[in-house]
Amino acid sequence: MEEDLYSIGEMAKLANLSVKTLRYYDQIGLFKPAYVDPKTNYRYYVDSQLFQLDLIQPLKAVNTPLQEIKLAQDLSSNELYDFLSRQELKIQQQIKVLQDAEKSLSHVKKNICFSERYTELNKVIIQEEGESCIVQMRAEGISTQNVMTKSYSQLKRISEATDGFLNNGYGATFSFQNYASAEDILYRHLFIPVLTNKQTASLPTEFEITTIPAGKYALIVYEFNPEAYWESYSKLVDTIVQQQFTVLSDVYELFMPIHYSPRKPESYLVEMKIRIFN
Amino acid sequence: MEEDLYSIGEMAKLANLSVKTLRYYDQIGLFKPAYVDPKTNYRYYVDSQLFQLDLIQPLKAVNTPLQEIKLAQDLSSNELYDFLSRQELKIQQQIKVLQDAEKSLSHVKKNICFSERYTELNKVIIQEEGESCIVQMRAEGISTQNVMTKSYSQLKRISEATDGFLNNGYGATFSFQNYASAEDILYRHLFIPVLTNKQTASLPTEFEITTIPAGKYALIVYEFNPEAYWESYSKLVDTIVQQQFTVLSDVYELFMPIHYSPRKPESYLVEMKIRIFN
Repeated sequence: MEEDLYSIGEMAKLANLSVKTLRYYDQIGLFKPAYVDPKTNYRYYVDSQLFQLDLIQPLKAVNTPLQEIKLAQDLSSNELYDFLSRQELKIQQQIKVLQDAEKSLSHVKKNICFSERYTELNKVIIQEEGESCIVQMRAEGISTQNVMTKSYSQLKRISEATDGFLNNGYGATFSFQNYASAEDILYRHLFIPVLTNKQTASLPTEFEITTIPAGKYALIVYEFNPEAYWESYSKLVDTIVQQQFTVLSDVYELFMPIHYSPRKPESYLVEMKIRIFN
Repeated sequence: MEEDLYSIGEMAKLANLSVKTLRYYDQIGLFKPAYVDPKTNYRYYVDSQLFQLDLIQPLKAVNTPLQEIKLAQDLSSNELYDFLSRQELKIQQQIKVLQDAEKSLSHVKKNICFSERYTELNKVIIQEEGESCIVQMRAEGISTQNVMTKSYSQLKRISEATDGFLNNGYGATFSFQNYASAEDILYRHLFIPVLTNKQTASLPTEFEITTIPAGKYALIVYEFNPEAYWESYSKLVDTIVQQQFTVLSDVYELFMPIHYSPRKPESYLVEMKIRIFN
């Protein structure tokens, strides 16, 4: 077969590579010109070399070191087949990591939107809320004084196992009562929001996937500090008593970080809400 | 809220990071212990710091430089939202690159399997073949003498645009006739195999997606050299004439690289086949 000769510039265009890259590939012996003019030292390529790029380009796209690609070129068919199968597995793992990261960042974004939704703080409002899914665990002896314990790490691990990363705040529930002070409040459950209420058989028995039902809620949002906690709960109780609402659920509490900087004091928005009937 | 203190080892376990990484994060101010014992210099962490990792971990998973993550921590909500949206786009592009590379490598693998399927070379066999999809273009004035021209680069670019990378050999068709010599053979079409025969509206008019139909074929496979080409075609003609087969198609020729090494002479297996009725 007679073949056209391509200059390095033409080959660069055909192969979608830079001239500099082609020179480097030649230097390390990965992809060499078919012909070098002995007078001018110009490199010339032929079209039938293009198939070599079928192996080089995708391996390079997945960050295989060039020396490893060079070794792969010289493998026997069987060895190359096995090598490529291993590369495919690696790629699938890389894709999984990226997909999980994307999900996780999209939840940080949702969290930002969520924080911005509250224009009015420290005031009880009555509103309809949609259903949301959570994974929860019983909170044995956990009070407002020690809620931020490693329990959340466990919940996060569970939610990651069931549905990738999810960073949408940290929640807790307690029964609606007339407490004497914040110290008396004992949590019933700790929870974190998840995307789905699909049951997974593999979930350890101490964890439960459930929903915060849709309905009418009395709701207050405040920036966390120990005094604001008790104040806000008292406002919620006062509203319910004064307006004679019937209470249909526990109190749901959700902590959401206001920022992610370790260089500012930690600060959270807390949403406290209870389902009502009126 | 009272909080438990974790040693650096405990925090490493909770966060799924190494102690060395946590020390480095402290050093560069990305993730700092809540408390350092002034006597022992031991670092202590608290659980409420964990949410900071919600931002750090996924950004790190997509290779965001640590200094850039540090800058992201201090962005305002709106800025952080926009930053994360840009990261998500980048991640989606990275996933696309990986998926294309995976497809491409899986086709190199298929090619290897394909080459290994031929145990008997240089002999005409009659066999049933399944349907396969190709993208083809008219071969104006291209003969066996100059087939490996940049036309294949064009076809490859088309197939990449329609269905990701595809490296499954290089094909051509010509009409079945009694030629005087190989020089007289003029190709009708050049083609490359593709995964799907789904028509795409965006395909330039000179290209066509079609199929090599299923049916009975007379087929010969040989290792390419100019003499073998003519010899093999002659064997195919002889068989068809002697066994009085009716010819139902053009001759399909498919070149498949035997290896991908630039350090060995280029070598191809060529499959030449024609659909018959008997």
